[in-house]
Amino acid sequence: MRYLIFILWSSAAFAQQKPLDFVKPFIGTQDAGHTYPGATVPFGSIQLSPDTDTILFAVNGAYQPNVYRYCAGYQHADSTIVGFSHTHFSGTGHSDLGDVLLMPNRGSIQWNPGTAAAPEKGYRSVYHHDEVAQPGYYGVYLNEIGVKAELTATQRVGVHRYRFDDGAPGHFILDLTHGIYNYDGKNVWCFLRVENDTLLTGYKQTNGWGRTRTVYFAIATSVPLSAYQIKDFKPSMYKGFWRKFDTEHQFAEGAGEGLKAALFFGEAKEVEFRVALSGVSIEGALLNLQTEAPKSGFSAYYSAAQEQWNEAFSVVQDANFLHLDDQSNFYTAWYHSLLGSSIYMDVDGRYRGLDQRIHQADGFTNYTTFSLWDTYRAAHPFLNLFYPKQDADMIESMQQHYTQSVHHMLPIWSHYANENWCMIGYHAVSVMADAVVKENPYLKDPSRFLKAAHSTANQRFYEGLGAYIDLGFVPEDQSGSSVSKTLEYAYDDWCIAQLASKLKADSLARVYQSRAENYRNVFDLQTGFMRPRLTNGNFKTQFDPLSTHGQGFIEGNAWNYSFYVPQQPLSLIALMGGEQRFIAHLDSLFEMELPDAYFAQTEDIMREGIIGNYVHGNEPSHHIAYFYNFTAQPWKTQATTRMILAKQYSLKAAGMGGNDDCGQMSAWYLFTALGLYPFAPGSPDYQLTAPLVKDATLQLDNGQTLRIKTLHNSDKNVYIQKVSFNGQQLQKPVLSHQELLKGGELLFELGPKPAKKAFQKP
Amino acid sequence: MRYLIFILWSSAAFAQQKPLDFVKPFIGTQDAGHTYPGATVPFGSIQLSPDTDTILFAVNGAYQPNVYRYCAGYQHADSTIVGFSHTHFSGTGHSDLGDVLLMPNRGSIQWNPGTAAAPEKGYRSVYHHDEVAQPGYYGVYLNEIGVKAELTATQRVGVHRYRFDDGAPGHFILDLTHGIYNYDGKNVWCFLRVENDTLLTGYKQTNGWGRTRTVYFAIATSVPLSAYQIKDFKPSMYKGFWRKFDTEHQFAEGAGEGLKAALFFGEAKEVEFRVALSGVSIEGALLNLQTEAPKSGFSAYYSAAQEQWNEAFSVVQDANFLHLDDQSNFYTAWYHSLLGSSIYMDVDGRYRGLDQRIHQADGFTNYTTFSLWDTYRAAHPFLNLFYPKQDADMIESMQQHYTQSVHHMLPIWSHYANENWCMIGYHAVSVMADAVVKENPYLKDPSRFLKAAHSTANQRFYEGLGAYIDLGFVPEDQSGSSVSKTLEYAYDDWCIAQLASKLKADSLARVYQSRAENYRNVFDLQTGFMRPRLTNGNFKTQFDPLSTHGQGFIEGNAWNYSFYVPQQPLSLIALMGGEQRFIAHLDSLFEMELPDAYFAQTEDIMREGIIGNYVHGNEPSHHIAYFYNFTAQPWKTQATTRMILAKQYSLKAAGMGGNDDCGQMSAWYLFTALGLYPFAPGSPDYQLTAPLVKDATLQLDNGQTLRIKTLHNSDKNVYIQKVSFNGQQLQKPVLSHQELLKGGELLFELGPKPAKKAFQKP
Repeated sequence: MRYLIFILWSSAAFAQQKPLDFVKPFIGTQDAGHTYPGATVPFGSIQLSPDTDTILFAVNGAYQPNVYRYCAGYQHADSTIVGFSHTHFSGTGHSDLGDVLLMPNRGSIQWNPGTAAAPEKGYRSVYHHDEVAQPGYYGVYLNEIGVKAELTATQRVGVHRYRFDDGAPGHFILDLTHGIYNYDGKNVWCFLRVENDTLLTGYKQTNGWGRTRTVYFAIATSVPLSAYQIKDFKPSMYKGFWRKFDTEHQFAEGAGEGLKAALFFGEAKEVEFRVALSGVSIEGALLNLQTEAPKSGFSAYYSAAQEQWNEAFSVVQDANFLHLDDQSNFYTAWYHSLLGSSIYMDVDGRYRGLDQRIHQADGFTNYTTFSLWDTYRAAHPFLNLFYPKQDADMIESMQQHYTQSVHHMLPIWSHYANENWCMIGYHAVSVMADAVVKENPYLKDPSRFLKAAHSTANQRFYEGLGAYIDLGFVPEDQSGSSVSKTLEYAYDDWCIAQLASKLKADSLARVYQSRAENYRNVFDLQTGFMRPRLTNGNFKTQFDPLSTHGQGFIEGNAWNYSFYVPQQPLSLIALMGGEQRFIAHLDSLFEMELPDAYFAQTEDIMREGIIGNYVHGNEPSHHIAYFYNFTAQPWKTQATTRMILAKQYSLKAAGMGGNDDCGQMSAWYLFTALGLYPFAPGSPDYQLTAPLVKDATLQLDNGQTLRIKTLHNSDKNVYIQKVSFNGQQLQKPVLSHQELLKGGELLFELGPKPAKKAFQKP
Repeated sequence: MRYLIFILWSSAAFAQQKPLDFVKPFIGTQDAGHTYPGATVPFGSIQLSPDTDTILFAVNGAYQPNVYRYCAGYQHADSTIVGFSHTHFSGTGHSDLGDVLLMPNRGSIQWNPGTAAAPEKGYRSVYHHDEVAQPGYYGVYLNEIGVKAELTATQRVGVHRYRFDDGAPGHFILDLTHGIYNYDGKNVWCFLRVENDTLLTGYKQTNGWGRTRTVYFAIATSVPLSAYQIKDFKPSMYKGFWRKFDTEHQFAEGAGEGLKAALFFGEAKEVEFRVALSGVSIEGALLNLQTEAPKSGFSAYYSAAQEQWNEAFSVVQDANFLHLDDQSNFYTAWYHSLLGSSIYMDVDGRYRGLDQRIHQADGFTNYTTFSLWDTYRAAHPFLNLFYPKQDADMIESMQQHYTQSVHHMLPIWSHYANENWCMIGYHAVSVMADAVVKENPYLKDPSRFLKAAHSTANQRFYEGLGAYIDLGFVPEDQSGSSVSKTLEYAYDDWCIAQLASKLKADSLARVYQSRAENYRNVFDLQTGFMRPRLTNGNFKTQFDPLSTHGQGFIEGNAWNYSFYVPQQPLSLIALMGGEQRFIAHLDSLFEMELPDAYFAQTEDIMREGIIGNYVHGNEPSHHIAYFYNFTAQPWKTQATTRMILAKQYSLKAAGMGGNDDCGQMSAWYLFTALGLYPFAPGSPDYQLTAPLVKDATLQLDNGQTLRIKTLHNSDKNVYIQKVSFNGQQLQKPVLSHQELLKGGELLFELGPKPAKKAFQKP
């Protein structure tokens, strides 16, 4: 709807450049980005995408899961496609999902995927990168078997179209055992019924990152089945009385740990599948199917998916860049920022909760996949600014997770009715505080959030939290990564304090304001770094501030993590010896030349994800470039952020230096490209930098329009000379959320040299 | 309610002898009876009973399931009790269930049950048969640990009370991996949450006889947990991020294939558990708990359970026997006849269907456990006569099974939302026909039953049915047990014909009347036996009419099975050479002396289950003793049934010569003791014999009272001299259901010698 209005308003030239045309879903699909190229809608429950490997490969004769490389099931440089499965994380550093794989084939049935080295021995197919990926669409030609495969999706239904070239009749493998990170024993149980000749139902249940997870499905076909086989490749020791029947040919029900099916459609040259998923039940999957995709017709679903994307992109009424590449990076980052979390409920609002019970979403939309250690930083603030309804629904989903948590905790990493406990901190409180402080109008009864945050922050069993409460820091001898934990708990506690203050819960606010100071307890004046301490209070000896392993940190070293005091930047500057020493120290972070060996072991990023000793490919540093704004040299923020944008984001499949991490890397790009950054979520303020965007017109949810404009923007003119908001010159490189929401024009005058008087000293 | 009225009516002497006092639940618990002694209510969803072994034992170094011996989890001669679990079949010849085991212990935690030879090395306990079993109650003193354990139940909640003698503090093992027929891999998944210090929830999911089966539970404790441990003894290869925590001590959630828990209650000397089960969900289990057993109080639940039994037994207003033993046998058989099928739905009417979806029972009560090959013969006719509402609900459950069946079939052996395909035939049609022909007033829209029966009888994939339809018999070279199948299909087809006739579907009636003649196709005039044929039409050579193996029969030999034409007894008599030859042949069945070797391989019965060559311990012969009624010598029915009653039923734990088979053996006893037998269910007629009962007063559901009286009944006076119904002498040893329902007095005059003129010739 919004998009249609925008078309009328825009110039004829612009009208030819639809936002969707700039989106390149292949960005990040090679190496560490861990994005997927498949078809999905904004926050889609279905992420229907090709898997290019099945994650098990032989090491020393034993099969080992390649957890990392195939987090999204796809590596762009691979030469074979195993099949098309319906669920994928976007940009994670751990893997799961890949549910309900369909794959066309010809000739005799190949029951196993085979290997990339010998694809002809399995059901996988060679492809020659004759691929098209768009928001809501993926198409590929499978050379080995002569089949054009196309995918699109509704919110809860994956839609496939397969067109066979002339030749031997085709068939399909439905491999319920397929999955991403598919170690032996991951598949717990499968159930499959051929309800009639155009409808299959069932479920598959897995163990793994999501420990207790069941995906129910209903599969409708456009062509009646002419024959089918269901086969259990991990049969139980107990055969039961099914042994009396030929259960493998046209026997309409199967169950077991290793279930696969082969589906035949006579001589049909074109077959469509509509695959509805549900986390609730088979009934739920059928309801989703009947509601969202009651009949065949690939093209209509494709159009509808793209219309959903147009609607989502209508927030960006206009965005112009110096270079077309930047425009594509920007729109692709925007696209990726809407893939991090997924709607996780049936069309009737029923969903499976953390307690494994079925709940009714009462007045909200339930979401899953909260990679909060990543996304609290910029991804949620991005949604809070441009998609506040969705962010509020995600927060309500976190709140419901808390009510369902037997541990009385908000989510750490929420994952399809599971808590997978990945990473550290309790950053849901940051997302909540950020939305409450910024007065997100869609939140309901935030006092509940405070109660949940307070409960979460006092679970002594959790990751050194008992000791942190007692001692003011996590001792490394009690809980590893102790400095990262201490710093992040302190920041999170500050968030709870902000939440409490906003809600006038003053005594709680004081408690957490005090805990927010705990970063001081791990600062070592002697080395000038944050440094692990032991229960006895001593700093740990054998301390290497460059190493990322065994030093008290996670996904970062002491160099990077020592800047992790977003809640009290000026205090950190003082602690580090005052502004001059701080600036020099910060400069050196970006300028150090370090041997590769230091990074060989760094988790989750490519060598390209590092600039000097600054690690952009991991999240703990994402605020660091903005630290200059708190000194007398804010222009260094401007130059540094431009440099990072240029070095860390490109249009290549390997264009991301680290995991997109459910949109966090992309959200950093978007904020920075627009000249804003939420330095400390939970604060209403954005730090300003020189925008990459020449100009942008953004439709805010409250009906206001925000125009970000630059004057003299160029590759060399990266320094802010002056910023004004609605004609009023800003004295500091800061703008509050409440100001932004008024809409109007944020005008940056840029120039080739630092304008040292552009702002007052902080 | 009925019971209270009955007390007022009965004599003072009788009032001291409550029906419940005569019930001996230990009957059948030793050797082949396969009944359990535990606590349950009529048709109870909970069968809370001690398990004396866990069914795995070592054979040649490999553990093997002892499927048969521990079908009910209990053998009375055993000296140890493993624990108390909540679900048990009554009298089956195959095993499953045994869900959610609780067991008290003392001292250090024993996680495994251990062996009967070394019980001190496991959590099992020695007991010295200090046991009490009553309807709705089981109590035992566990000598090894000094604990009095008592069990009772509501419909959906098992209630436990444990009293510890002084000594070391006790604790409990909650073993979710325990099960009956517990082979490696049977446990698919378990989930357990400690919701708070008096409530645990979760589920366990099994494979096995019920291939895809999940039991959800909610466990409330009378004393708060002081500590607990949850441990997974079959941990997944993937450890996830739970490895960061001590998940074994006071970590409130566990999931895995091998989950057990240890529960501590400080120094508490008495602990009660209320364990609600559901086939639907954890929410369902909680609802069942809150509705049926919201608070502690063992005694109240015990009283309520016995009140339910009193209500069920109020049908028998009076029943007197020559011997007290007979009285106990009679009431125990009555008790067992109400344990065969179980209610399978939550208090709100929701249940899991065969399609694994959740359904709402609309206007009926859903049941599971239909061992139809056994129970169609007498167990269902018994319910149809005395508990027509329950029988109608069971029939509706079968009809719903059909609507949920992807195979479009009525149940063969329906089992907790599974079809286990055990045994042969499609005898649900018999149960339906019997109820329709007898005009059970609680049936709704019987035309649906005819449609379901017709569909079931035409599924060509099923057990030689395609060939049967084409050839008129099942060829042994296409499907084993071919004669048994042919004979039973023919009988079932006659049932469908009766159903169709009653519903005025004349053309269908003709089709099935014709199919009902198919028994003729396997009768071998040369040998005089039913005999397997091959596809080419030839009789199979190498035919041994005494053997039960590989001869075309199941649970019977040609001798016994050749009488299996209940639908056309006179035609069979003619086929066998006329009445004289038939009687001589039938006499010899009971009188043959056969070497033990013939029975060594006979399934499902003890040597004691056989009289001559007549096998009472298996079901195919159950009508045979009544065959004399169709000859000029009905007095042989009278003598033979008395003999069988005396030889096959006793008060010992080993008092049943074969499996009770969900009440079929008991129902045979009850009918025969009352002087009636449903020779061909689907016919409105009962065959009469000399009652064992001296007199009985039976409250019929329609408000009428039926009095069965005998004159001169004694151990020697077993021959009917005359029978009259409401003063009218009967000319044949037959009475129709419609006559019986009128109530009144059925008077048998008995004498020491056959009264050859008591009846007209048939």
